[in-house]
Amino acid sequence: MSTIISVDTTDVRFPTSLQLDGSDAMNPDPDYSAAYLVIRTDAADGLEGHGFVFTIGRGNDVEVAAIDTLAGHLVGRNVEELLSDMGATSRLFMHDSQLRWLGPEKGVMHMAIGAVINALWDLRAKREGKPLWQLLAALSPEEIVDLVDFRYLSDALTPEEALEILRAAEPGRAEREAELLANGYPGYTTSPGWLGYSDEKLARLCREAMAEGFTQIKLKVGADLDDDIRRLRIARETCGEGFPIAIDANQRWDVADAIAWVKALEQFDIKWVEEPTSPDDVLGHAAIARGIAPIPVATGEHAQNRIIFKQLLQADAIGFMQIDAARVGGVNENIANLLLAAKFGVPVCPHAGGVGLCEAVQHLSMFDYIAVSGSKEGRVIEFVDHLHEHFVTPVVMQNGSYMAPLAPGAGAEMHAASVAEFTFTR
Amino acid sequence: MSTIISVDTTDVRFPTSLQLDGSDAMNPDPDYSAAYLVIRTDAADGLEGHGFVFTIGRGNDVEVAAIDTLAGHLVGRNVEELLSDMGATSRLFMHDSQLRWLGPEKGVMHMAIGAVINALWDLRAKREGKPLWQLLAALSPEEIVDLVDFRYLSDALTPEEALEILRAAEPGRAEREAELLANGYPGYTTSPGWLGYSDEKLARLCREAMAEGFTQIKLKVGADLDDDIRRLRIARETCGEGFPIAIDANQRWDVADAIAWVKALEQFDIKWVEEPTSPDDVLGHAAIARGIAPIPVATGEHAQNRIIFKQLLQADAIGFMQIDAARVGGVNENIANLLLAAKFGVPVCPHAGGVGLCEAVQHLSMFDYIAVSGSKEGRVIEFVDHLHEHFVTPVVMQNGSYMAPLAPGAGAEMHAASVAEFTFTR
Repeated sequence: MSTIISVDTTDVRFPTSLQLDGSDAMNPDPDYSAAYLVIRTDAADGLEGHGFVFTIGRGNDVEVAAIDTLAGHLVGRNVEELLSDMGATSRLFMHDSQLRWLGPEKGVMHMAIGAVINALWDLRAKREGKPLWQLLAALSPEEIVDLVDFRYLSDALTPEEALEILRAAEPGRAEREAELLANGYPGYTTSPGWLGYSDEKLARLCREAMAEGFTQIKLKVGADLDDDIRRLRIARETCGEGFPIAIDANQRWDVADAIAWVKALEQFDIKWVEEPTSPDDVLGHAAIARGIAPIPVATGEHAQNRIIFKQLLQADAIGFMQIDAARVGGVNENIANLLLAAKFGVPVCPHAGGVGLCEAVQHLSMFDYIAVSGSKEGRVIEFVDHLHEHFVTPVVMQNGSYMAPLAPGAGAEMHAASVAEFTFTR
Repeated sequence: MSTIISVDTTDVRFPTSLQLDGSDAMNPDPDYSAAYLVIRTDAADGLEGHGFVFTIGRGNDVEVAAIDTLAGHLVGRNVEELLSDMGATSRLFMHDSQLRWLGPEKGVMHMAIGAVINALWDLRAKREGKPLWQLLAALSPEEIVDLVDFRYLSDALTPEEALEILRAAEPGRAEREAELLANGYPGYTTSPGWLGYSDEKLARLCREAMAEGFTQIKLKVGADLDDDIRRLRIARETCGEGFPIAIDANQRWDVADAIAWVKALEQFDIKWVEEPTSPDDVLGHAAIARGIAPIPVATGEHAQNRIIFKQLLQADAIGFMQIDAARVGGVNENIANLLLAAKFGVPVCPHAGGVGLCEAVQHLSMFDYIAVSGSKEGRVIEFVDHLHEHFVTPVVMQNGSYMAPLAPGAGAEMHAASVAEFTFTR
């Protein structure tokens, strides 16, 4: 029996705006940051749980304050009780009647809860000596269903339907795990596509992406239509006919603008249009999807919770679901999102990049492959090649694929030296 | 020319949970709280801008941290520039590319931005020597349209359509202002309906509400169906046939539960069903509205922004829009909400109660009456009779109506002694 003795938070910020990495139509100068937490216990094993909220600079301190507020729920609690029933632990935070007012289930407080839940999963995975994906993929369908909060989902997905989905994927788990360990999970890269890069750099990065084995790239669009046409032409000519190229507007448009803009780009054979408008606008996404069909809409990195994803699926608004490891209420809510996607037959292609998002989200796609959807078809995880060096177990890419991580944990742990070097002080 | 010299924040919490005031199906023990801010300038007039975020206890410190982060955008700025173009000032905060990641436009950071915007309006109204409602109602249609951020609205409401609505309401402004000054704006009371009150107290408070001139009451429901039936029977018998009684589930239900539960209560002649499910679930509200018709659905106190309201209207999901003074991005976004409601012909019946919400939101309904919808028909402002004594210009109720406030400002200023007495310390 052991007890949580501390929850330490740090405001970590990398000055990425100095290099224009990560610039897009809505985020011209992000400083990739993490509100980072470490949970420590009095257990003899000395294991810690690490988690974070990803932000792009200003306001990272507010996330730190939110996690600090949650720490009061954690310190002094029995570790085994929390970790053995992560469904109940997740609800403990989600349903706190006073904290709920700050959302409910959205924004700063929800992301902070997600970071805490993820840190507890990290600790549990380390205790079990497994990477998170393997821990989750070994749970029974009943245990997985117990992790999910079905509140507000039952008109689209019931616990019984979730069980059916999970049971249908039970045969073949072992084969898929072996296949995953051999071949990894396919990635795609956004590295060529940031706004602010020269045409020459764009073409060079497209060539490099293909040489590295990526089977899809993505370009940021939405700031200037002529630029977008020129950049897409370069990308298409460089990559050749048939090579999947997605575009990402980062919420730049209203509904009519989105449809008109995408129509002007459809000549370039677009794999998907990402975040065409406000992430809150389910009906807007549905209208855009109808207006640009057969080009599919993709969204999710700013989808605040499972209730938005449910509606996007109900409204036939998305062809791809892009979960994010650090936006919603942690691993548990993302399992709900994976189950919703499976119910509606929509592939999940996670958002990643930022700080540690690749390291974290790969576990969810790998779990999905083994135990939920049972398929990698039409599925790719975003990959951006920066800031991985700050993580203790950085992603391993081979031939454009994420190789299954083998180290115990959820992937969120940063080097102490990196945390110390990039701790933000005013 | 003057400059902002300080933004001071205070974590104010009232221990309301000790008395069960404010208890409902989702919020059993709220401690009504305010993350309170005061903007001071170096102007000789000594005037201050006051604003707040309302919360129900835990997490109020996180709102204080969020406002503190915004203070950096304010201190040192020219006051006249900010106040003379409040549309631009609002966009300055809303569109901050880094802070946007924490929402966008939702939750902790959005509410903090709303509080700052409201405090600036308070300062401007004091400088102009007018109550906020009167200041807003004297603006030209063009000036009002300039206050609104139409991003993500244009598929439902364009600036041109907003201008038309406002121009149509220009004739008769003076008459309506005179009528308002004479008769006030009708209120309804939730005081009888909190869970946790005895049946005797419920009946007594129903009688008192009618005696005080209120023309509608509201009961909290959703914790236990048998209790709800018993309490509604008492209320209906006490108030008599035809007296409007609304019910409020505070997000308790999933879609199917909501329809079944309300069907079991429809015998009591329900004015509206408030917050039947998640405030994020536009499609769920629409399904419930179809399932319980002709009983209308009402929601809004947790609607995170204008984009959710837009969709609720587009989907025919609400019969009443319940704006809240301290949930969205301040006065400016609430003007967008009022214009959306006018466009779709849905009456606005604001949420109030809490700490200072009555004092703040009355200005918006009065402005709506004079300059936007031009009507009080079918419209009532919620009233709860507690904590008004802490405000410098508390609401004045006469015969169940809010009398138009005459003091300059937006109504948010608390007595310094109250702030000092209820400042929260761990």
